[in-house]
Amino acid sequence: MTNNLFNKLSDNQISNINKIILDQINTPVEMLNNACAHLITSGGKRIRPRFAIIMAGLLDKTLVNDEAFARTAAAIELLHTATLLHDDVIDESQLRRGKPSTNNLFGNYVAVLGGDYLFAKVYTLALYNNKNILLNEFSRAVTTLVEGEISQMDNIADINLSEKEYFKVIYAKTSILFEVAAKLPGYILDIDDDKINLLAEYGIAIGNAFQIVDDVLDYTATEQTLGKDIGNDLEENKITLPLIYCLQSLDNEKDITEFKQAIKDKNIKLINDFIKKTNSIEKCLTKAKSMIGEAFQKLNIFNDNEYKDALLELNNLIINRDY
Amino acid sequence: MTNNLFNKLSDNQISNINKIILDQINTPVEMLNNACAHLITSGGKRIRPRFAIIMAGLLDKTLVNDEAFARTAAAIELLHTATLLHDDVIDESQLRRGKPSTNNLFGNYVAVLGGDYLFAKVYTLALYNNKNILLNEFSRAVTTLVEGEISQMDNIADINLSEKEYFKVIYAKTSILFEVAAKLPGYILDIDDDKINLLAEYGIAIGNAFQIVDDVLDYTATEQTLGKDIGNDLEENKITLPLIYCLQSLDNEKDITEFKQAIKDKNIKLINDFIKKTNSIEKCLTKAKSMIGEAFQKLNIFNDNEYKDALLELNNLIINRDY
Repeated sequence: MTNNLFNKLSDNQISNINKIILDQINTPVEMLNNACAHLITSGGKRIRPRFAIIMAGLLDKTLVNDEAFARTAAAIELLHTATLLHDDVIDESQLRRGKPSTNNLFGNYVAVLGGDYLFAKVYTLALYNNKNILLNEFSRAVTTLVEGEISQMDNIADINLSEKEYFKVIYAKTSILFEVAAKLPGYILDIDDDKINLLAEYGIAIGNAFQIVDDVLDYTATEQTLGKDIGNDLEENKITLPLIYCLQSLDNEKDITEFKQAIKDKNIKLINDFIKKTNSIEKCLTKAKSMIGEAFQKLNIFNDNEYKDALLELNNLIINRDY
Repeated sequence: MTNNLFNKLSDNQISNINKIILDQINTPVEMLNNACAHLITSGGKRIRPRFAIIMAGLLDKTLVNDEAFARTAAAIELLHTATLLHDDVIDESQLRRGKPSTNNLFGNYVAVLGGDYLFAKVYTLALYNNKNILLNEFSRAVTTLVEGEISQMDNIADINLSEKEYFKVIYAKTSILFEVAAKLPGYILDIDDDKINLLAEYGIAIGNAFQIVDDVLDYTATEQTLGKDIGNDLEENKITLPLIYCLQSLDNEKDITEFKQAIKDKNIKLINDFIKKTNSIEKCLTKAKSMIGEAFQKLNIFNDNEYKDALLELNNLIINRDY
């Protein structure tokens, strides 16, 4: 996702946001600084704050360069980063974005406490806009992410997970933060609730599509392009949309039994055969596309400008990414 | 600390605060509810919110029963509880207040995520007073607690830890939350900064004394009265005030060498002999008493009332507790 309008229209603001974030983690405790700096400077596409910036431009171009808004957009990235720190502790992950994870390099205690530290900074940054609704949204995001993470553990290895339950899980895991990013500029500009709801709907669609493609890539990507292991979800007994659509498409008992057994056995080759035979990857991508398309359509109440063009690009980039 | 004025003047408000807290953890995720409820209903003296209530009464009796204030006082207890959850994960503690810890009963992932959940609720509750300064204070408390926890890890086994460094550690670990509890009512009532500073100073003195007595009890208590293992600090290589005062009091090289070796060897019997010989426990308690006394003296600018009497009681209770 380089050299496109979505990035071009947000690059300057992201430089500023990176500075805002690094300023926040300037603590007298050296190890904490090192750990936070390691995580924050080790890549990441900053897609959530970029998304907030582009949504701001759709509503009001002057907001894009507003300093208080920048702090709130930085808060979204910090919140996301804090959850990654804690997720890596919970999953005992050794790698993050192809580099050693914080828990791996600095120990669990630094990763747990570092996450707490960043969560606190989320609110410090969010206070600059002086709007309680923003702080409530950040708290709702954290509690939703936590509920999602724990629900996902409960769902593990549930071969009969429904499509509806899957969408509940990915909302709580991923889409919530895109929803918050999309709504932020609307709250800051005090626009009507009806319009806020359209922004929310589009944010959720983008988040859903982002996660669906993530789940698809876990079956289709090569390890080289993805920068992490593939087949992870199966390894961790996570039932995702490709498997759900595949199971929906099978209509004879023998196939169904064989497919369920393949999931239990973690037989990736056999599973991929079934996925191909049932066109389940295409069905996933079609679903993602149609969700985005419907929600984007409703943004036509906002005037056309280059930020809307950038969103149109984003719609395609999300579906077509291979990493 | 039962049947005293400090508790009597805060009991009704604490019942309300317990309800406020339980309302906040009413999530659709059963395991998260169970884990939070386990922690919150499994005892705890609620000393921090009680302290905030009594300080409120010192300033303005009507604040004591104010609902928005109650939510902010509840936030202090939730913040404290969230840090306990994460501390137990980091220390791999199996017991908390004599009962199985949350990580022990529900697993690390529930304890880490449960802590995150409670941190988010701190801000939800703190927003009711509609004062940014309160949210900033809560964020400062979290970042200070984190910095303190990580610094303490750095200081471990540093036999030459100075008294000054010790007080920095216990401020960040304990006194910060008593400071915030003491200042909260002042911020809500918009009193002058000079007065806020006196409240802060007294809160810090109470917190320091509380922690000094904790550190003393680790050497003097019986396991039965304390409800947890004694000698823990030595076991964990934590250098606390009894050891610092003891080392300060020794004036011949032979004793100093022998004492330092005893710390390295974790020879609790020999250490206790040195502590007795140098009256280090008494020196610790004298220090705690004088810190509280000086700070309390300065509260004489506030009118006498039963809440001030309760604080006078608290001053003694903190020093004389045996658990």
